[in-house]
Amino acid sequence: MAHNMEQCIDNCLDCYRVCLETIKYCFEQGGKHAAPDHIKILMDCVMACQTSANFMIRGSEMHGQTCGVCAEACRRCATECEKMADDEQMQKCAEACRRCQRTCEEMASSATSA
Amino acid sequence: MAHNMEQCIDNCLDCYRVCLETIKYCFEQGGKHAAPDHIKILMDCVMACQTSANFMIRGSEMHGQTCGVCAEACRRCATECEKMADDEQMQKCAEACRRCQRTCEEMASSATSA
Amino acid sequence: MAHNMEQCIDNCLDCYRVCLETIKYCFEQGGKHAAPDHIKILMDCVMACQTSANFMIRGSEMHGQTCGVCAEACRRCATECEKMADDEQMQKCAEACRRCQRTCEEMASSATSA
Amino acid sequence: MAHNMEQCIDNCLDCYRVCLETIKYCFEQGGKHAAPDHIKILMDCVMACQTSANFMIRGSEMHGQTCGVCAEACRRCATECEKMADDEQMQKCAEACRRCQRTCEEMASSATSA
Repeated sequence: MAHNMEQCIDNCLDCYRVCLETIKYCFEQGGKHAAPDHIKILMDCVMACQTSANFMIRGSEMHGQTCGVCAEACRRCATECEKMADDEQMQKCAEACRRCQRTCEEMASSATSA
Repeated sequence: MAHNMEQCIDNCLDCYRVCLETIKYCFEQGGKHAAPDHIKILMDCVMACQTSANFMIRGSEMHGQTCGVCAEACRRCATECEKMADDEQMQKCAEACRRCQRTCEEMASSATSA
Repeated sequence: MAHNMEQCIDNCLDCYRVCLETIKYCFEQGGKHAAPDHIKILMDCVMACQTSANFMIRGSEMHGQTCGVCAEACRRCATECEKMADDEQMQKCAEACRRCQRTCEEMASSATSA
Repeated sequence: MAHNMEQCIDNCLDCYRVCLETIKYCFEQGGKHAAPDHIKILMDCVMACQTSANFMIRGSEMHGQTCGVCAEACRRCATECEKMADDEQMQKCAEACRRCQRTCEEMASSATSA
């Protein structure tokens, strides 16, 4: 497996975990953290990362397409979390999303069969 | 929820189930049924259907994008299964994939936020 | 596949879907509906149902164990939803959980290899 | 979050990934590697690890029960992979399963609410 795909799988699994931890944190905080649209965007990112990691690990020819969707879910989630950048957990989440977005964009554009 | 989205969720959950049953069947048959590329395409379809159903049920704004990927996974899986159309299980699987493909294409093209 | 396992898979997929719809509904309602512990119990049920359906469809020898966990997750979720039984969606969710609980208990106790 | 739960989440996500990579490897090898029962046991482990990681990250009160099932899935998968211990990938997989089994057993026995 190519080195950049290994890195992208790492980033997807890390982003999956950080976003799911952040959902738990947001429920505990309540208020704007627990707003339905905020949780929905975090959940989109959790699911997209899980799916993309799975397609890459299995060596699917469609991984370029799932990485494309994942990059967009990460971009939206990072933008959302950056609005609360004075909050350490949200900042951590935004950074995981940006890392995952970058490698997923790379995988999406390099996958010839996608 | 709009009627056509309800139908698409039904089709995704049905296609998920039929493809996963078909993987089990293919392992038991062995030979060309259990060829790595054949199983991989079925597994792509299982995962894509699960993800799309999840995005639609949660009311995600990104469901148009996951349905786009799912339509493509279903199209590939149906084409693959139709090569063994003299086999009842493969025929059943191809039909579930075609139904799911059609409604996913519809969802993908009608989702303005996708 | 035995008839009662088919029924249990139906109930798991239905309960998965209804619980995930209910989470969306609870976010929209806010207040006690969106309490962290309430959402957590619904999410446990979503994940347990998805896992048990997957193990049964694949014909796993461990399905008795996943059905055992699923029955407990459904029991907890039904008990929680029945506290808001004057709310139609919560009532619908409680009923889906009870149906799934019953067939999962049956699968758990009949699985000799579990 | 307690240190030992962090470690168990790490082990579950690692075991998830290694088992899914191993399934891909086994298909490519064919023969006894691709035997239906072998793949089924690996797939059980993939799903059980994914579910347990999810329950722990979300802080679910039922994580003790999902870890109990995961420990058993890991034990079975390790035993199976150890039969092919002259194969480097199978050895790597067995080791990931044993690490995950140990921490899942620990989580299962320490969870008072399980």
